[in-house]
Amino acid sequence: MKIDVWFDFASTYSYPAVMRIGELATNQGIDINWRAFLLGPIFNQQGWTDSPFNIYPAKGAYMWRDLERLCSDLQLPYQKPTAFPRNGLLAARITCFFADEPWIADFVRAVFRANFARDEDIALPEVISTCLLEAGQDAENILVAANSPEAKQALREQTERARQMGLFGAPFFVVGNEQFWGNDRLERALEWAQGQRIS
Amino acid sequence: MKIDVWFDFASTYSYPAVMRIGELATNQGIDINWRAFLLGPIFNQQGWTDSPFNIYPAKGAYMWRDLERLCSDLQLPYQKPTAFPRNGLLAARITCFFADEPWIADFVRAVFRANFARDEDIALPEVISTCLLEAGQDAENILVAANSPEAKQALREQTERARQMGLFGAPFFVVGNEQFWGNDRLERALEWAQGQRIS
Repeated sequence: MKIDVWFDFASTYSYPAVMRIGELATNQGIDINWRAFLLGPIFNQQGWTDSPFNIYPAKGAYMWRDLERLCSDLQLPYQKPTAFPRNGLLAARITCFFADEPWIADFVRAVFRANFARDEDIALPEVISTCLLEAGQDAENILVAANSPEAKQALREQTERARQMGLFGAPFFVVGNEQFWGNDRLERALEWAQGQRIS
Repeated sequence: MKIDVWFDFASTYSYPAVMRIGELATNQGIDINWRAFLLGPIFNQQGWTDSPFNIYPAKGAYMWRDLERLCSDLQLPYQKPTAFPRNGLLAARITCFFADEPWIADFVRAVFRANFARDEDIALPEVISTCLLEAGQDAENILVAANSPEAKQALREQTERARQMGLFGAPFFVVGNEQFWGNDRLERALEWAQGQRIS
């Protein structure tokens, strides 16, 4: 059984989703495919040049309060990022290029913790290096590979695939052709992966 | 203990929320204030002249599938409305003007069933009359009152209040100053009403 989790490193609700999915999926014998992509180009095609949470202040204000409440309920460390949305390009290239490596889940979680629990700028190579170290990896070679034309192209293609699939936000959980949007849908998506379909 | 439920009769996710809240709140000894308002004027102020589910097709396509799946999970009768968003002005005026009547909850549910389970045009006085009958009321006097200047003004004021509260969608559950957006947040909102706050 498999589930694809599509996420953007700047996405606020991807934070609780990414922090929760590992244990829940493992307990149910479901494998996770980590699918990093960029929401920016998808938002651009909708005519947005910023996060909708910044474009629509009422929605943004609600989201920040909701995220704080949610993290408290889940007992997840949380610190409101002083910059939003942060540039997750480098982290996304790494995740896309090394998606099948056994350390990738630890790396993904480390980057989300950096952004949402420690308020660090995940655009900086030194911050990402620390996240790679947290995942037990030597940063130097991975950073070189992440800046290769192949890694850049892989992320472009993955983002284009997300757009073609109709993914308009993050996180998305995908099981076969079935899509589930948002941290709130994680449990239902895992049930679906286990074969609990509706009539 | 009290909870305010703010909703628009055209709002898709308000359907499961409205159908669920009555029993859940009653079981927990929580009173419901039914707060109908119009999303249209609020959307207009954000620069939208239609529902975002129509403006953004990927988001709309996802929502319709998600709603169908959700209603199936909840065993709620569901038929995709052949027109969206429907004009809920008359139903909202009635709900706003008669909000404290003991029959209002039955009326609200009847209108949502008409729109989302029977695909009826809730803009039509004859459809609303049937909904009033389902709630045990004589339609004629209520329809006259709903078209009075006072009823029109009451809905305008309630919609303006929603905007000032920062309500940018529906349903919203409000407990004191705490806001919860979406059918997914109903359980958490009821917990909050019972005094389960976060640190």
